[in-house]
Amino acid sequence: MEIIKHSGRQDLKETARVEAFSDGVFCVAITLLAIEIGVEVNSNETNGGLWHSLLTLWPKYLAYFISFINVLLAWIGHHSLFKQLRNTDNFVMAANGLLLMLVALVPFPTKTLGLYLHGGAFKAAVIFYTAYFVLISMAFRLLWYAASHNRSLLINSITEKQIKQITRNENLGLVFNTVITLVALINPIAGLSLSFVMWIYWMT
Amino acid sequence: MEIIKHSGRQDLKETARVEAFSDGVFCVAITLLAIEIGVEVNSNETNGGLWHSLLTLWPKYLAYFISFINVLLAWIGHHSLFKQLRNTDNFVMAANGLLLMLVALVPFPTKTLGLYLHGGAFKAAVIFYTAYFVLISMAFRLLWYAASHNRSLLINSITEKQIKQITRNENLGLVFNTVITLVALINPIAGLSLSFVMWIYWMT
Amino acid sequence: MEIIKHSGRQDLKETARVEAFSDGVFCVAITLLAIEIGVEVNSNETNGGLWHSLLTLWPKYLAYFISFINVLLAWIGHHSLFKQLRNTDNFVMAANGLLLMLVALVPFPTKTLGLYLHGGAFKAAVIFYTAYFVLISMAFRLLWYAASHNRSLLINSITEKQIKQITRNENLGLVFNTVITLVALINPIAGLSLSFVMWIYWMT
Amino acid sequence: MEIIKHSGRQDLKETARVEAFSDGVFCVAITLLAIEIGVEVNSNETNGGLWHSLLTLWPKYLAYFISFINVLLAWIGHHSLFKQLRNTDNFVMAANGLLLMLVALVPFPTKTLGLYLHGGAFKAAVIFYTAYFVLISMAFRLLWYAASHNRSLLINSITEKQIKQITRNENLGLVFNTVITLVALINPIAGLSLSFVMWIYWMT
Repeated sequence: MEIIKHSGRQDLKETARVEAFSDGVFCVAITLLAIEIGVEVNSNETNGGLWHSLLTLWPKYLAYFISFINVLLAWIGHHSLFKQLRNTDNFVMAANGLLLMLVALVPFPTKTLGLYLHGGAFKAAVIFYTAYFVLISMAFRLLWYAASHNRSLLINSITEKQIKQITRNENLGLVFNTVITLVALINPIAGLSLSFVMWIYWMT
Repeated sequence: MEIIKHSGRQDLKETARVEAFSDGVFCVAITLLAIEIGVEVNSNETNGGLWHSLLTLWPKYLAYFISFINVLLAWIGHHSLFKQLRNTDNFVMAANGLLLMLVALVPFPTKTLGLYLHGGAFKAAVIFYTAYFVLISMAFRLLWYAASHNRSLLINSITEKQIKQITRNENLGLVFNTVITLVALINPIAGLSLSFVMWIYWMT
Repeated sequence: MEIIKHSGRQDLKETARVEAFSDGVFCVAITLLAIEIGVEVNSNETNGGLWHSLLTLWPKYLAYFISFINVLLAWIGHHSLFKQLRNTDNFVMAANGLLLMLVALVPFPTKTLGLYLHGGAFKAAVIFYTAYFVLISMAFRLLWYAASHNRSLLINSITEKQIKQITRNENLGLVFNTVITLVALINPIAGLSLSFVMWIYWMT
Repeated sequence: MEIIKHSGRQDLKETARVEAFSDGVFCVAITLLAIEIGVEVNSNETNGGLWHSLLTLWPKYLAYFISFINVLLAWIGHHSLFKQLRNTDNFVMAANGLLLMLVALVPFPTKTLGLYLHGGAFKAAVIFYTAYFVLISMAFRLLWYAASHNRSLLINSITEKQIKQITRNENLGLVFNTVITLVALINPIAGLSLSFVMWIYWMT
């Protein structure tokens, strides 16, 4: 009995530490999104010149805005998913590691989007960006598969209905991001606009 | 009864994780303020030349100093606000997300201020910087609106008087930062100096 | 009795804070791996040109991938090791500090590998990278020596068999990384490929 | 009674959150020390050329090594100091903020030391670096003054003897760092070497 309780506590700690580490990666990644934005050094700049420089950075602001919300929603999704877990195995750890690897790299497609949002390579930049979030959805789907196919990893109080609900949500996320990318292949602005619709869907 | 206790604990964990994530963003953002400061690489530098280079970086030191205190005060304010919450909803999460998005980007106006504090674009740099903190005050005000308009999100022990007190504080922060920006429109040095007065007000 | 319980709690807190700090270093280091990857700024880029630029970054993606997994495995290993500790002394703190110093610097060999993986200095880059992880294995081995040679630092429930098991694991990690480096001296591609084999060994 | 217990718990949480935030700043700052180290991009590099480049980075490795240990020792010192606190006031918060502001900026003197350790501005770089740690010692001394002059902020179990012991330690740290800087004014190498002696003193 004592052993069971002890082992129970160990398990709790186990999940807690994985969650804390994942939170840390989300947190550093989301804050690092900001460091790519910067005005050019030009010490002879006039007031008007600086305002102009700040305004022409709009593609970077937009890229920052979109990525910040995407990573924040991914963090909330990660949180909801881990609330259903009471233990992890190597498969969950590997799937979670893959997800974190993609999340930590979000500053890269963000920078690419910010640099090329206004220029000749606009379409390629948007497709690259939206396709990157298809990969993230796939990693989420894999993580949930790893967690849910082994019933002993889930908390006791979860119902079959709740499991199906989460499976449906993860599938939906993957479908949504794929549709956004397909739309971006035809019309990049329509693809990005669709992201906003998806956010409102998740939030309400 | 068991369910209530369990649900109570879940709620606690919920708020705790949002607070921890927010703390992490504040913490990484405040530390990233420092990475923009650097001397030019000049391997033939003499001792006197290096001292001269280090001294001419004073606008960056000043910008770092101002931003560090501003972010630290924002963190303390965020802390005080969340101490009154026992649960979050989507509106609070969105308002908090908006606030974090602005906090994570503070290194950008800081860098702008440090680059142009001593030059022809001085006025534009100060107005941009002070106006940025008007935005942050607005996000704080929105967060408190989201938290306080739904009484069930607040802790039980909070009194109507305390709620009004915090509302007044958040309004005051917004008014103060707006006044600083308006003063900076006329005289940038006076605007920045007013910030110091505000800090002493908050601290005592 | 009261004192023992109190001291027990203090000890717990002590180890917890060292673990939390170590986790933080692992977490920031693993996220910083990503910030070196970036496309060249070229505002006249065409869609085709951007795709080409993104494809030619493959050595950086590969270096990121390898390092992310290596740091993640190191974090898991650090976790397993600290689960056996109930207290620390100055020797453990120093050995852990040395390990963290090496982990925090992993972005440096990673960047080197990414820059020279495809070029004339390929062999030197791979040897430098693999030799760096021999150093990390040595730091792990030292940390375990520091922890295990003083039985009072370990948790009560650990058995002699478990201690030997961990010692064997740490030795094995050191031998593996040394073999990889020796193979890389002859054939760098074979050396890197061997890393993948090692990952599958650790994971299963 | 309930109120006292509740308030006691709140206080505990208060200190815990300040400690966690401070730990975060230490943790990010210590990891950011590493990002300044990098080889020059030169895609035509030969194996021999890369080894040569890696070797000529020795001043950066040395600067990284020295700063990592200094920040780690500062973290341990911060930890010991906060273990004696059960509550904070505005003065402690301000003194702690000042200390964190200096700690977060350590990558700057570190980079300066790494760039000029081997060159004509060697002396200026070492004096700047060592004088920076005099500032950090002063911030520690101020923090301990803020904490100890108000007995109600300290934990109940602390003795007058322990308070004097910590006061003596903080004074000693300040004296040590001042002596190192004074020695560096005459002979920079002797000044840096003295740091190593101080580390061994702290560790044993």
